[in-house]
Amino acid sequence: MPRLEGGFGENMKVAVFGAGGGIGAALVESLADAPNVETVFAISRRGMNGAQCVAPVRCVDYTDDTIEAIAKSLPEIDLVICTLGVLHGDSFGPEKSRRDLSLENMQHVFHVNTFLPTLIAKQMLPKMKKNSKSVFAALSARVGSISDNRLGGWYSYRASKAALNMMIKTMAIEHARRFKNSAVIGLHPGTVDTALSKPFQSGVAKEKLFDPDFSASRLLDVVEKVGPMETGKIFAWDGQEILP
Amino acid sequence: MPRLEGGFGENMKVAVFGAGGGIGAALVESLADAPNVETVFAISRRGMNGAQCVAPVRCVDYTDDTIEAIAKSLPEIDLVICTLGVLHGDSFGPEKSRRDLSLENMQHVFHVNTFLPTLIAKQMLPKMKKNSKSVFAALSARVGSISDNRLGGWYSYRASKAALNMMIKTMAIEHARRFKNSAVIGLHPGTVDTALSKPFQSGVAKEKLFDPDFSASRLLDVVEKVGPMETGKIFAWDGQEILP
Repeated sequence: MPRLEGGFGENMKVAVFGAGGGIGAALVESLADAPNVETVFAISRRGMNGAQCVAPVRCVDYTDDTIEAIAKSLPEIDLVICTLGVLHGDSFGPEKSRRDLSLENMQHVFHVNTFLPTLIAKQMLPKMKKNSKSVFAALSARVGSISDNRLGGWYSYRASKAALNMMIKTMAIEHARRFKNSAVIGLHPGTVDTALSKPFQSGVAKEKLFDPDFSASRLLDVVEKVGPMETGKIFAWDGQEILP
Repeated sequence: MPRLEGGFGENMKVAVFGAGGGIGAALVESLADAPNVETVFAISRRGMNGAQCVAPVRCVDYTDDTIEAIAKSLPEIDLVICTLGVLHGDSFGPEKSRRDLSLENMQHVFHVNTFLPTLIAKQMLPKMKKNSKSVFAALSARVGSISDNRLGGWYSYRASKAALNMMIKTMAIEHARRFKNSAVIGLHPGTVDTALSKPFQSGVAKEKLFDPDFSASRLLDVVEKVGPMETGKIFAWDGQEILP
């Protein structure tokens, strides 16, 4: 990709958490190509696109402690993108009905979609560049919008993303007090052809099922455009704001 | 209190979860007085207002299984109010700063504020009266509104209530398909003089710190007014809708 515009500096340092997922891997690849990006730190539970973990990817089990250790090991960062998220596992899918709700699944979905991104923000926000533009972005989802919810279902996924959106807003308010040229935002990547959406693609029109590279490139367009005026908000891949 | 108006029937059966808390106890007392309420089922982790657990309060440790067992033991219900909620514990308070965030506290706060009310709704909604008005209400909070968040702080409490609001909206959509005269709502009780708000009352103007009886009576006014048109929404004690 061409250079990252929108007020970012030279010799950018970027960190992608969740670099092993479909969107994460595409973001790492695009960012590594940008002439004004010096280093991309790729952090993942596993290797890229499910492969073995090899350098330069840093493989971790995300916990309070490992996230803190990673943050401590990094230099000042211009851009963080957190792509962590789960919709279904081997033994569970998103709840079609209230009957499908269980404590165990809620705990797991909130852990990945809400708690871990929050802990990553807690540790990474103090590492953001202070004197020129910096952006912290976490992948959210349009279905995390309460006002946009007309179909129901997907209880834990929806609620965990609504909770993430509140965490983003609350982080943004605190962060703005000392980082005057920064934005903390959520991003809706669209429906992307990755493992997360795989079981749910049959109802999606072909032109609405994005290639990870396409989604990554549109998300970076949004990251270029945002600044302090947009902090705390959630944006779709096409730049439209998604209201709570 | 006088009879419960707003389209409720005679011989009402009501269940209050969290009956041992300040607002819960006040609700139980008010409802037991209403001439058209036949039975109030009071469910709590402990006795009323911190006292020993004595009948007719049913004391339980809330789990998937105990909530299911309680629901199975109850008859058809006209009104459920779930007052479960936590803001601070012996060893933690609401986070003033992102530095105060921890996985353990997030897990605890979401367990009480989001997961347990969701499991109660899962089990109780199928028990609601179908052929005349019925209402399921859970205590939410104004600070759970993302659009209303201007001050920041209180990360876990805010986000867990935003998640609860999404659960309420999602439950409401599913419930409306088979229960045509029902409402599933969230309620903001105001700042009430209870154990939950105790450490945070110094900044609250006296006329804005409610007695539990006053809050309970205003919440029941709201419960009287709502119907299928209001389902999925969050209302303050004064009847004003709180947007997401």
